[in-house]
Amino acid sequence: MARIKAVTARLFNVPLDEVLTDAKHGDHTHFQLITATVTLEDGSEGTGYTYTGGKGGHAILAMIRHDLAPFLTGRDASAVEDLHDAMQWHVHYVARGGIASFAISAVDIALWDLRGKASGQALWQMAGGAARDCRAYAGGIDLNFPLPKLLDQIRGYLAAGFDGVKIKIGQPTLEQDVERVRAVRELIGPEVTFMVDANYSMSVEDAQKAAQAFAPFDITWFEEPTIPDDYKGYGRIAETSPIPLAMGENLHTIHEFEYAVADARLGFIQPDASNCGGITGWLRVARLARAHDLPVCSHGMQELHVSLVSAQPNAGWIEVHSFPIDRYTHAPLTLRDHRAVAPDAPGIGVTFDWDKLNNAHQELHA
Amino acid sequence: MARIKAVTARLFNVPLDEVLTDAKHGDHTHFQLITATVTLEDGSEGTGYTYTGGKGGHAILAMIRHDLAPFLTGRDASAVEDLHDAMQWHVHYVARGGIASFAISAVDIALWDLRGKASGQALWQMAGGAARDCRAYAGGIDLNFPLPKLLDQIRGYLAAGFDGVKIKIGQPTLEQDVERVRAVRELIGPEVTFMVDANYSMSVEDAQKAAQAFAPFDITWFEEPTIPDDYKGYGRIAETSPIPLAMGENLHTIHEFEYAVADARLGFIQPDASNCGGITGWLRVARLARAHDLPVCSHGMQELHVSLVSAQPNAGWIEVHSFPIDRYTHAPLTLRDHRAVAPDAPGIGVTFDWDKLNNAHQELHA
Ligand SMILES: [Mg+2]
Ligand SMILES: [Mg+2]
Repeated sequence: MARIKAVTARLFNVPLDEVLTDAKHGDHTHFQLITATVTLEDGSEGTGYTYTGGKGGHAILAMIRHDLAPFLTGRDASAVEDLHDAMQWHVHYVARGGIASFAISAVDIALWDLRGKASGQALWQMAGGAARDCRAYAGGIDLNFPLPKLLDQIRGYLAAGFDGVKIKIGQPTLEQDVERVRAVRELIGPEVTFMVDANYSMSVEDAQKAAQAFAPFDITWFEEPTIPDDYKGYGRIAETSPIPLAMGENLHTIHEFEYAVADARLGFIQPDASNCGGITGWLRVARLARAHDLPVCSHGMQELHVSLVSAQPNAGWIEVHSFPIDRYTHAPLTLRDHRAVAPDAPGIGVTFDWDKLNNAHQELHA
Repeated sequence: MARIKAVTARLFNVPLDEVLTDAKHGDHTHFQLITATVTLEDGSEGTGYTYTGGKGGHAILAMIRHDLAPFLTGRDASAVEDLHDAMQWHVHYVARGGIASFAISAVDIALWDLRGKASGQALWQMAGGAARDCRAYAGGIDLNFPLPKLLDQIRGYLAAGFDGVKIKIGQPTLEQDVERVRAVRELIGPEVTFMVDANYSMSVEDAQKAAQAFAPFDITWFEEPTIPDDYKGYGRIAETSPIPLAMGENLHTIHEFEYAVADARLGFIQPDASNCGGITGWLRVARLARAHDLPVCSHGMQELHVSLVSAQPNAGWIEVHSFPIDRYTHAPLTLRDHRAVAPDAPGIGVTFDWDKLNNAHQELHA
């Protein structure tokens, strides 16, 4: 038996190069990386992680240390899905989403890392193996960027090899959003995939109007037009929207995804393994999506999601997020012919440069 | 302006006299009390709190200390509802329920304590003022009690002045549950109100069968027959159940309560101010319930809920819970003619014996 000896959690506050802003989360000055390392009695180790936009990291750390670690110690690490479910029930009264989803995600990913190392399989193989690469787009957190700066950033994406881009919307007026959308489409030409993301800042009615206004610019999806809780509101937007809707980064339980699939009339679904129960949770959403003929995409954490999305027969796009996680890992995401390529090393294929993380954290707090 | 100078959070693990068990949370050996004290620049103080069945307390503490306290410092404490909403948005990415609901609840209750002390009003007055007392029942966590012990506990409730009792169900077979339900009804006679609570341990189909089997025993409500996420499943149980359904202790956002009201066909709704956003959150649920002609009840925290339920025109029952919180407060819940009476002191009317809490915590960890 692969008995768990210890679960060790760490928190790093990692600075951003500049303040990044979206419509509902406000200013981002740093992100939080919370890692969970599961050590077995035979000495083998797996590391998983989750991240936040700057809040909640200490609570995630506390739940891993005080609730999940004692619960897992002595159990069989190879029963990954059973442990996932057992963790969910263990903390159920304070869970059903929220912090527990992030904490369980980090630990679940560590267990998958151990599973891959034990079997010699890469994550894209364990997760289904349909392919080793997938479509990718660059997702900016750029609501506060003046238009020239926004366009410069888009030029940078194209130069870096992306053939898909996403911008934030939610300016004071719809006209301002439309002006930015028009300028970006003019810059990128007709061949590049283009999405917009409102970070749930609009009412159903405003989102219906916005969708009409964006339609001439060939928008692949309209992300989080309104609050994620309002599944039927999404359905009403979809009824009149010429643009498909997308969401998922704010859904944390399989039940929430089931409501979204039933009522929200989405064109794309975007689970995030760092907050929907790790790889076990993400794969359950991918299966649900497949059963409803929905392409499965992702939010953030591109260095890990590249393996999960590539492996699905119903693969959509991965988002390549603005948080500079690549500076702190040993294998930055690679693009080949515009497609993101999954790592081939056994385990999750993401390993951290702990010294760099420590230094970044200490500099931020110096 | 009533400017906030500091928010101080504390965690106490409080022992139970014996192990208490229900169908889904397993064994309870202690409960966790997490307090939040808001101090204003003028020196005035308000204290709120939340509690758990033994897990998550450290995460709640961490969120109050690291995310809510810095956010609140310097703000105007009198804008209670605005601060409530601002806290929800501040931690939204890691919230929408879960730990954040508990953390925000504790702080929100502290702000109401300050509001009452400033205005000289008791909570039952601030919360609506319909009445100062309400119906109450004793809720046991007694699934593991052999029948004679269960009946002894019920005798104790009656001797203490209760005219309503609730027991846990979820024995290995329905026959065993029915035997216990029959024995309790025989003991209490036809006049005493009697509820059962499955702690969401049943499938929809099993709950439908159980409701039929319990019907002959005049059961006032069937609580949490199945998982709280399955609103439509509740609706299907209600279609065939001769007994009204109740739930709410596991719903944390107003959106979840809206789904419950729309789809679950409940007979009673049971928000808990310690986990649905404090007094602000609880009062919103009470208004929603009133608009749908539903009696509003409560879960746990009787020393505070007595004020909230009494104050409503659509008052149901408060649950008097098995966690011995009364030993650690200065004004234990009082019954008069079987009815629970709300405290009349300005503020929330709940004050803690900090020395006793400290001693209990230290003994548990000695
Ligand atoms: Mg987004
Ligand atoms: Mg209950």
